[in-house]
Formats: sequence, structure tokens, C-alpha cells
Amino acid sequence: METIDVKTTTRSEMIDITSLVRAAVRRSGVSDGLVCVFCPHTTAGVAIQENSDPQVKSDMVRHLGLLVPREAGSERPDQNSDAHIKGSVIGQSVTLIVEGGRPQLGNWQAVFFCEFDGPRDRRVLLRVLAG
Amino acid sequence: METIDVKTTTRSEMIDITSLVRAAVRRSGVSDGLVCVFCPHTTAGVAIQENSDPQVKSDMVRHLGLLVPREAGSERPDQNSDAHIKGSVIGQSVTLIVEGGRPQLGNWQAVFFCEFDGPRDRRVLLRVLAG
Amino acid sequence: METIDVKTTTRSEMIDITSLVRAAVRRSGVSDGLVCVFCPHTTAGVAIQENSDPQVKSDMVRHLGLLVPREAGSERPDQNSDAHIKGSVIGQSVTLIVEGGRPQLGNWQAVFFCEFDGPRDRRVLLRVLAG
Repeated sequence: METIDVKTTTRSEMIDITSLVRAAVRRSGVSDGLVCVFCPHTTAGVAIQENSDPQVKSDMVRHLGLLVPREAGSERPDQNSDAHIKGSVIGQSVTLIVEGGRPQLGNWQAVFFCEFDGPRDRRVLLRVLAG
Repeated sequence: METIDVKTTTRSEMIDITSLVRAAVRRSGVSDGLVCVFCPHTTAGVAIQENSDPQVKSDMVRHLGLLVPREAGSERPDQNSDAHIKGSVIGQSVTLIVEGGRPQLGNWQAVFFCEFDGPRDRRVLLRVLAG
Repeated sequence: METIDVKTTTRSEMIDITSLVRAAVRRSGVSDGLVCVFCPHTTAGVAIQENSDPQVKSDMVRHLGLLVPREAGSERPDQNSDAHIKGSVIGQSVTLIVEGGRPQLGNWQAVFFCEFDGPRDRRVLLRVLAG
């Protein structure tokens, strides 16, 4: 299992971790198989999205904030139920196909760590399976 | 393939199945690999969420009901399109990393069966792959 | 790796690709394992949903349009941020369990390519792992 460390700097943001995922797949030595990219946090997620136009990210973070506003939570001490709900809408587990030692992404696709309750020190777990 | 039986008791609820997932992984005898947790129903899903504060679950069920109200459906006889839509927002397939014979979850993470059109007798399918 | 070609005919629609997924699994010759179904596009996704009542699909496409309207985007030239956001809500990667040479789906489940910015020529990637 590989671990990627991610440092987030604001409450809600998307951080491109594609090059770190590619490097982890390379280190595994697996040429063909699958790689599972897993977020072990309940107020964050992993998404595949475009990274060429940065406004896609900002539109997405803003619109998720409209769909699941801070007030979505009850009167919990943490008051971060919105972040938990966004995490489940985006999801914590993504599986990619590995071919020729590289995760197969579309031309415009990148892998993002999605922070919904930062800033925090976060981790992403990876496991590459050959086959 | 392993099967977990789940009995739901109300229309919308989240049921913690983590201990059943852990037991299925243990029975597989696989030390390192991946486990796919799959919900074979179209009005339910599988999510990873926090289980220490029960209000996270109730906030999530309530807010999903606001985002996708009962009226989201057309005049179908079943009138449960809201449950179908929630199922697709949450998803039916989650892949976890297995290490040392245990699914790798964060400190606060649990695996939940998400019922959106209960009460019903439900199933969850699991397959553990070594590698 | 297998590739499925999908031709979409309108801006937002769900296309049943179950028979193509079944055929790809059969061609792989794998009896037991997992199959990853991956959408390499950022304005589309892959979902599991019911296909017996076509109104489920139309209710879902319509309600996603209410949750993420065209105006969700900023003043980007493409003005298709709504399609990107829907793609991340639905997700691009689904893993199914393979048993006896067949992907294990519930009685009512089908695999759908979800187009959110068509019409376009699209692809779905598949990889079957034995184990």
C-alpha cells in the first residue's frame, strides 16, 4: 500500500494529485491491472475532473456549497455535517485501469483530492493490483 | 463471492455494516488486496461515513431528502424515483484496500448500507481479490 | 483493456451499455474476479440504475438538471460546468463483481453511460481482473 500526503489550505478546495498517483503506480512496478485510490477521511473525497480550466474546480466547489450549505447540519458541536454530506456525494474510492504502467485517464482528466473541512493534513491510500 | 443480508426498518436510513465487511474479508483468507462492496439494488447504495456521532447519519438522510424530495419523481405507479436518484448520487460500488487481512478505513470511517426505499430485505455482495 | 464506443444523441441522456459490458467480460475469459468500468470523460459518468421503467431515467436526468442547472457555471467560454459537476456527482468509475463469467447485477440493475454534454462520440474503458 502506498500513502500520499496532502496538505490543504482552506475549508473547501480541490487539489490535483495526478502526478503523485502516476508516481505511486510506477513505483509498484505493475504494468497492467487496477489501482484503487482511497480517501480515509469522512469530510473529504476523491474525484476525477478537468484541470485545464481552473474555473471548473471553482465552479464545482461553489456549486457544492449551494447544494449542501453549512446550515445542512444539525446543532452538532462540530457543525460540519455539510462536509460529511459532500464527501458522500463525491465519494472516497476511485478505481482506475492501469495499462503499460500508467493509470488510464482521458485527455482532460485529473485525479483530485477534495477537501470539504480544511485546512488539514490529509492522506490518500493507494493499492495497485496486477492482472 | 460473499453475501451480507441487511434488514432495513424504515424508508430512509443508513446501517453500519463495517463489522460484517471485516468478517467477510477475514473469511476470504486474503491478507493484501482489494475488496469490492457492491449493492445489487437500484433504490439503495453503499457509502463510507462517520459512525461516532449518530447525528451525521441523520443530517445526511435528512439533507438528501431535501435535495431529492419525494416529488422528484414523475407520476410513476411506484412513485419512488427519488430513491433511485439518491442511489445514484451515493453509488452502489465501493472498493477498499485490504492490508494485513483488514479493510483499510480511516479512524472515523464506517461502511454503511444506505436504504432509500425501505423497509426491505436487502443484500450486499463482496469479492476480495489478492494482489 | 477493452473499449466500448458510445454515440450520444442529445445533451443529457443515459444509455444502457449492460450487454456491451457483459460481452467484454465474456471476451476476457475471466470466470471469477472484478471488472472496472471507467468513463474517460469529464462531462459524463457511469451509473448503475434500473432500466425496466424508462421513466426512472427521464426522472433522473430531469432532476439532475434541477440540482445542477446550466447557470451553475461561471462565465467560462464553454459554459458547461454543470456537466462537469453532474459527472462528479455520478462518478466515472464503477467496479462490479464477476462470478461464473458474468458481472453480478441485481435483477433490476443495468449499467448506464451518462452523457451530460452531448451529443458526442464517447468511450468506456474496461479491465477484468481474475481472482
